[in-house]
Amino acid sequence: MSSTRAWLTSLLAPVDDGLTRMREILGRQIEEPSAAVSDMTSHVERFRGKQLRGALVLLCGEATGNTTDEHAAVAAIVEMIHLATLVHDDILDGAEVRRRVACVNQRWDNQTAVLLGDFLYARAFALSTELSSRLCSRILSETTRRLCVGEIEQANRRYDFDMTQDEAEAICGAKTASLYAAACELGARYPGGNEEVGRQMYDLGWQLGLAFQIADDCLDLTGTTEEVGKSVGTDVEDGKITLPVLVAYQRASDDVRARMRDIFTAPDLEDRARLLVEQGHLGAGLEVARLRARTLVAQASERIANLPESPARRSLEGIAEFVLERSF
Amino acid sequence: MSSTRAWLTSLLAPVDDGLTRMREILGRQIEEPSAAVSDMTSHVERFRGKQLRGALVLLCGEATGNTTDEHAAVAAIVEMIHLATLVHDDILDGAEVRRRVACVNQRWDNQTAVLLGDFLYARAFALSTELSSRLCSRILSETTRRLCVGEIEQANRRYDFDMTQDEAEAICGAKTASLYAAACELGARYPGGNEEVGRQMYDLGWQLGLAFQIADDCLDLTGTTEEVGKSVGTDVEDGKITLPVLVAYQRASDDVRARMRDIFTAPDLEDRARLLVEQGHLGAGLEVARLRARTLVAQASERIANLPESPARRSLEGIAEFVLERSF
Repeated sequence: MSSTRAWLTSLLAPVDDGLTRMREILGRQIEEPSAAVSDMTSHVERFRGKQLRGALVLLCGEATGNTTDEHAAVAAIVEMIHLATLVHDDILDGAEVRRRVACVNQRWDNQTAVLLGDFLYARAFALSTELSSRLCSRILSETTRRLCVGEIEQANRRYDFDMTQDEAEAICGAKTASLYAAACELGARYPGGNEEVGRQMYDLGWQLGLAFQIADDCLDLTGTTEEVGKSVGTDVEDGKITLPVLVAYQRASDDVRARMRDIFTAPDLEDRARLLVEQGHLGAGLEVARLRARTLVAQASERIANLPESPARRSLEGIAEFVLERSF
Repeated sequence: MSSTRAWLTSLLAPVDDGLTRMREILGRQIEEPSAAVSDMTSHVERFRGKQLRGALVLLCGEATGNTTDEHAAVAAIVEMIHLATLVHDDILDGAEVRRRVACVNQRWDNQTAVLLGDFLYARAFALSTELSSRLCSRILSETTRRLCVGEIEQANRRYDFDMTQDEAEAICGAKTASLYAAACELGARYPGGNEEVGRQMYDLGWQLGLAFQIADDCLDLTGTTEEVGKSVGTDVEDGKITLPVLVAYQRASDDVRARMRDIFTAPDLEDRARLLVEQGHLGAGLEVARLRARTLVAQASERIANLPESPARRSLEGIAEFVLERSF
């Protein structure tokens, strides 16, 4: 285990029991007597990754003194929605490797990936309808809408260098930060508690999620598949103009701009991300993006500092740091 | 308007007001400020088709004396789930024409079709969480799971001539009848009423839905795009062994079986469905399938006959006939 992975494991220690229950619930929820389905779902369990979103439900519950018996189920639902988006993302991205497991649409086909994602969404919503409060169903169906709208907007703005930084951030927010925000809000508020605390924790989650996505966008340009554990360079391949690229483009000369557009669009180019970093003078863009992520994490840290002292609060502080430092 | 369309319109007359409200609710529910999203959703409204599933919610409500103010919303949710499966089906089928509108994945791409389907699911679940009773969320999330499992099973059994007729029917049931059954159950029971009546109407919907799907499988072999209003022959193209094909295969000589398998699998073959009907001696298979559909409709009609006399009951009787006679 790398040192950053060991660090994350230690940060999640205060909610170890909750995470174990979350994984049990998730496993039960995607069990199916159909052999065709369980072949697929067994594969998907290996996608599970860091499970940061589920952990945030539990940590925010603990840190606000709001933990209930149902928090582990809420965390499982959040993770299932995230899994569904990953499975459908693989159709979007043509990513070849995700977390070092051949992705679903490589081992099966696009059809199967669509259906497996749909199955995960359906199981997530079904579990939410069994909880004592409807808050989870309400917040997460609305969040799923926002995730989709974010992805649709992003697909619609491919190869569009005329986006503003605000527009790029709004897309990042909808497609990633909204689920982080919902996770933190539900942790702090489920089954229905204090709306003001919920709003605070929603903002905290939004800032962490946005910082996480911006860090991800930087890793997609500069990381290696080995380090990151999934395909890198896919944003460039797919024509997605992320914040570091957009900033670099806005600051570039006309010549460099033309070269950047060529690197995105010329057919049969190998290793577009590396070419972009080298020939697009991406240094400044990456710096601005990382600075933006640091600002967001600083804002999140202020909110965390307002919580009463507890092991869960210390974990949230650590996660805020981890979002910036992580290499995977 | 063709005479069968005029007939269907007259059958739906007792719930005209409810259908108008259903369409208004559906339209509002898929409105989005995002131009990228509304471009897509405006297109999807033209997919709407017969809206039989939504109409069954309303008719079963009327026929059992169970109509509430929320039935139109329940019907809209059922139709939105159906729309989502259609949009995702277009990724599955490679169908080129559906209801004479260029389908979503032709005008946009697979990515967009995945996201639009996800968006429709999310909006359907979001609306269900706003209703006074959770019954709709519960029944429809479970139904969505079954729809997915049916589609996954079907994808898994492509080119599998060793299926039994029961297995073929179970797939048909999960992927189509389950939503008809849920529509009828919700109509009769929502927000929570008589479970026994709900069970009866569930069975009625199951039988109608299964008969509808078997009729669809026959039309895919023998209909024309012109008549049916969507691509035909796609089951054969996609390797789906439907009931009429399976029965014909089971009864065929070894020579004819080999030819049938070739028609399914030989590369670059044009018009596989026509070849199959001609060279696979599909007459007997089609006859058995149509007989099965008639039996199911007769069982459904018995249940309908047990309902008190009303215009809605007469419409249900007509719809049972329509399922067999329809050519679109």
